[in-house]
Amino acid sequence: MIPMTANDLPLTREAILDAAEQVLRRFGPDKTSVVDIAKVLKVSHGTLYRHFASKASIREAVTERWLHQSITIPLAAIGDEAGGSAAAQLRLWMETLIGLKRSFSTQDAEMFSMYAAVTLIEAEMIAQHVERLIEQVGRLIDKGMQNGEFKAADSAQLARALFLATSRFHHPAHAAEWLLEGNAADFEAVWTLLMRGMLSS
Amino acid sequence: MIPMTANDLPLTREAILDAAEQVLRRFGPDKTSVVDIAKVLKVSHGTLYRHFASKASIREAVTERWLHQSITIPLAAIGDEAGGSAAAQLRLWMETLIGLKRSFSTQDAEMFSMYAAVTLIEAEMIAQHVERLIEQVGRLIDKGMQNGEFKAADSAQLARALFLATSRFHHPAHAAEWLLEGNAADFEAVWTLLMRGMLSS
Repeated sequence: MIPMTANDLPLTREAILDAAEQVLRRFGPDKTSVVDIAKVLKVSHGTLYRHFASKASIREAVTERWLHQSITIPLAAIGDEAGGSAAAQLRLWMETLIGLKRSFSTQDAEMFSMYAAVTLIEAEMIAQHVERLIEQVGRLIDKGMQNGEFKAADSAQLARALFLATSRFHHPAHAAEWLLEGNAADFEAVWTLLMRGMLSS
Repeated sequence: MIPMTANDLPLTREAILDAAEQVLRRFGPDKTSVVDIAKVLKVSHGTLYRHFASKASIREAVTERWLHQSITIPLAAIGDEAGGSAAAQLRLWMETLIGLKRSFSTQDAEMFSMYAAVTLIEAEMIAQHVERLIEQVGRLIDKGMQNGEFKAADSAQLARALFLATSRFHHPAHAAEWLLEGNAADFEAVWTLLMRGMLSS
């Protein structure tokens, strides 16, 4: 029999993550305990430990789901929907990534700081998230190589290089620097240099 | 009359910074107090406050001096001494910066973590340090533009872009990532892309 929550909903992974995200947002990662999450679900903490080995693994799963929903999915739509040149789509993709990160860093500060902390600890999960994003960049670069906008090259390697070379503008460790005067001009200077290396003409 | 230390040396700014660095290395920034530093110098903490307004300003000055001596000066020598093409000098400069940062992050961990913390707080001092480094990069780029290795462009802006685009490999916030497998290949991919945008041929 699947354990039920007090609301008679089955205790699914999603239900646990919903409760955990709610509690983590309210109390912050340091003050949240597995017992707090169990209380919201009206189950014992022993029941939760059958789904997640530790508070750290719950926190990792909440962050992973948040990254997927709030970053990976919105960005994936750009390749499919946006018109214009591949270079314009690539620029839109990068500006959207930067805009999302920047707005989360101020508007969704609890999740953002949890994500920034997890970035230093859960290297494997973050590497996979970054891999998904780089694949999206690779598809946009492929488009531009096929239509002749971009010089031919190893698009997967180029996508990774482009992502890493713009770390200053989207990696959470740089959040404080996004608020510095000149940040927009700095991005422009970096993007200009990167496009000089990629554009055919 | 200039106050003297117990060793009958005048209480210069350098003497204070020497003592402060010694104490900060021993106890760490959080546990070091101005009184601890004054004790080493055998002066009252009131005497120290005539030179520095706060513990934070002592910490900033120690970090600034350390950055100058251990990063800025060694790198400045590269432009003057290294032979070979401007592109090779530029690459050597960047590899030296990355190597110094990486070795300090493990071999001089106390000063490195103080520097990483100060980077988030003392934006103005760090901006000036970065400005000095970018000027060095600019001089190497100018050389390469003059001898035709690099395409003509605004060398100051290009130098800034090159520095920012390589943040992942030298900004202290990324220190944990320098230890990841693939870091050297990642640098290679970024450098290749940047040089594609700069080299004439």
